[in-house]
Amino acid sequence: MKRRSFIKHSSLTALGVTVLGVTDSYSKGFVLDNTFKVNEQRIANRIAGLSNFGRDEKGHGYRVAYTKSDIEGRAWFMELMKKAGLDPIIDAAGNIIGKRKGKNASLKPIGFGSHIDMVPDGGNYDGALGSIAALEIIEILNENNIVTAHPLELIIFGNEEGGTIGSKAMVGELTTDGLQQKSQSGLTLAEGIKAIGGNPDNIASCIRKKGELYAWVELHIEQGGILEKESIQVGVVEGIVGIVHWEVTVEGFANHAGSTPMNMRQDALLAASKFVIAVNEVINSVKGNQVGTVGKMAILPGAYNVIPGKVVMGLEIRDLSSEKIEMIIGEMQKRATIISSDTKTKISFERQPNESKPALTDKKLQQTINASAKALGFTTKFMQSGAGHDSQHIASIAPAAMIFIPSVGGISHSPKEFSTTPDMANGANVLLQTILSVDKN
Amino acid sequence: MKRRSFIKHSSLTALGVTVLGVTDSYSKGFVLDNTFKVNEQRIANRIAGLSNFGRDEKGHGYRVAYTKSDIEGRAWFMELMKKAGLDPIIDAAGNIIGKRKGKNASLKPIGFGSHIDMVPDGGNYDGALGSIAALEIIEILNENNIVTAHPLELIIFGNEEGGTIGSKAMVGELTTDGLQQKSQSGLTLAEGIKAIGGNPDNIASCIRKKGELYAWVELHIEQGGILEKESIQVGVVEGIVGIVHWEVTVEGFANHAGSTPMNMRQDALLAASKFVIAVNEVINSVKGNQVGTVGKMAILPGAYNVIPGKVVMGLEIRDLSSEKIEMIIGEMQKRATIISSDTKTKISFERQPNESKPALTDKKLQQTINASAKALGFTTKFMQSGAGHDSQHIASIAPAAMIFIPSVGGISHSPKEFSTTPDMANGANVLLQTILSVDKN
Repeated sequence: MKRRSFIKHSSLTALGVTVLGVTDSYSKGFVLDNTFKVNEQRIANRIAGLSNFGRDEKGHGYRVAYTKSDIEGRAWFMELMKKAGLDPIIDAAGNIIGKRKGKNASLKPIGFGSHIDMVPDGGNYDGALGSIAALEIIEILNENNIVTAHPLELIIFGNEEGGTIGSKAMVGELTTDGLQQKSQSGLTLAEGIKAIGGNPDNIASCIRKKGELYAWVELHIEQGGILEKESIQVGVVEGIVGIVHWEVTVEGFANHAGSTPMNMRQDALLAASKFVIAVNEVINSVKGNQVGTVGKMAILPGAYNVIPGKVVMGLEIRDLSSEKIEMIIGEMQKRATIISSDTKTKISFERQPNESKPALTDKKLQQTINASAKALGFTTKFMQSGAGHDSQHIASIAPAAMIFIPSVGGISHSPKEFSTTPDMANGANVLLQTILSVDKN
Repeated sequence: MKRRSFIKHSSLTALGVTVLGVTDSYSKGFVLDNTFKVNEQRIANRIAGLSNFGRDEKGHGYRVAYTKSDIEGRAWFMELMKKAGLDPIIDAAGNIIGKRKGKNASLKPIGFGSHIDMVPDGGNYDGALGSIAALEIIEILNENNIVTAHPLELIIFGNEEGGTIGSKAMVGELTTDGLQQKSQSGLTLAEGIKAIGGNPDNIASCIRKKGELYAWVELHIEQGGILEKESIQVGVVEGIVGIVHWEVTVEGFANHAGSTPMNMRQDALLAASKFVIAVNEVINSVKGNQVGTVGKMAILPGAYNVIPGKVVMGLEIRDLSSEKIEMIIGEMQKRATIISSDTKTKISFERQPNESKPALTDKKLQQTINASAKALGFTTKFMQSGAGHDSQHIASIAPAAMIFIPSVGGISHSPKEFSTTPDMANGANVLLQTILSVDKN
């Protein structure tokens, strides 16, 4: 419970000459001007510590936003923030914000952090790494008596997994109607935000204006298998894909599976199966990193002895380009028309309201991350984020960037999600050097 | 409530000369030896009357066996049986049996009837027609003062839709273990049988020995669209298909639908979709009337943003030949092996315990039905029954046969199930003439 004050650490190495803009050093050769590193063991211990909140007897994690486990995990994390000298506040959307003063109060703050909520039956690294590494930066600065020129802000966004709710609110995109949506906790967003200490009645008070933050950097696990497959240590995220969902309904005709000959059927599941394959073929027929998934399907009436009369599917397409998403869905709809005619069924598409626009990260920050990683001796790769992140909203109000580290087996949103401690430490060291570099430029 | 006694009608036209075996008249030219016909309007009225039991405000029917509606419908039907001079009893399995004496008590009884229970949200003709037409035969015999040589038995089987339970019990195939299975009513079979007046504790008392019945004939709607499509009035059923179910499980790997590139996926739904198409292709690649259906499918975990990790399907194959069913499932399993390898998934098959063996109907009875229908001026077709029926069990203890009439649009097990009144009357007239002919031969 002993609180350190930053003031005590103000006699520091001379850092923090603020130079706006990015120098050529990024592309030439980035020279680290310090050699301190994050504490690898402390990161691993804290990942393990956080994983205790919302873990059932089988070792599965259920730290879903706004639930008891989320509230307890947040309390644990805020206690660590306090011990590290931060004085965390909770904004109206339930985001946790810990500020650390800089040498120059007139400079804009540099933000970094992630989230600590989890999908149901999720893993211990998604969000947790970025949050714990952000706190580790503060610890290292404290331990090395460094005060940056810019103020720093450690931000833990509320309910990332339920639709990047905290960051959406911070950029003014969470509506009053939106607050009435049910969250996975069973509570409405408004109720959930209240449960974690926010104030949904004055949600606008959490909004950060464009230009208010100097930069935003988020470290995260890749949640895919590219870095591991290509044996690369650090991913520099070029952008976060846009996500569009469609509910695709196939209407055939439910009939007796014994007495209806094959050539007289209007089998909605046969048509839906052809469509699932068409989705795969269309996605694979286009050059690029786009992905398309039919992740859910309801079959009606759903009995051994009844030909399916209706199938409702959930289709998702993700890409860095909105135009490409539109082109792809157009192709899928053409294929659906052919399937519909071949199977004597009707196929209709209902675009869902919750789409995310693609978000590009800041080019200069990408270069800073890449140069920091190279200077630390790591292999890097410029890549897209196939997953949505809070950073995509923050990118609309500040230069934003993300650092990825490998996910073993490419597994995420699963209890099998795993990243090695050295990889986590690598990412945290890149985050540290990036922030120090941004602070100087 | 006035009860007619058969005794009053015993001064009759000279019918009932019992000649065992079938004469050549079947194949040459069958001559009706009476001209009386069923009462078309009475049949239509009673179909409408029965449909009132278990119909909801939207006009959908829920006369599921052992429910209140089933019990009320049975009481209504038994009241009509009593009015027609039958004195219905309920056997240990809940089957309703109404006996009408013949001239010669030493002759074996001729049985006919069907069932009056319904699938959830089912139609008003499946089972109901055969039951009401059977009662109509009694009415016509009464009105025309006919006493057959053989005793007659009108049988309404209990819980046909839940697995031909009443007829299964009657042939001694319902086990004590089977009685503990849950029925669609929510009750176990034992509880349900008790609810409709049966005695599950002495279930064996309902068993009819092989040879105890002289013949069994069931009139039924086709439940398929062949007769209507080919403009044929009467179907002569050659056999009732065997039915085998498999639970087919595809195991892939659930992963993040955004960050898992297409070429790194093990998508269980993509594999399942290929399998659904393979089922269709294998069935269509073989000559004959076999049918194969994937009627249900569960997708896990089932979210827009998660690649399906597991899919569980219900596969059904029906055919008149058990060997053909085995050959077909063998082909499907070969296809599954290829799909499994192509999609990096595992596909396994679990054969379900409730299979029905194919049942062939009696050749002589088929000829009698065909000759009766021809003599009445109807077009006929020899065909298989793709649906299961109580007759398939009775075929193991007595010469059994079925008469089909057209189902409009081939629709069954649906509120849209419909057969025209003239078609129903045609079927009932064929049933009447068939019984009279069997009685004489």
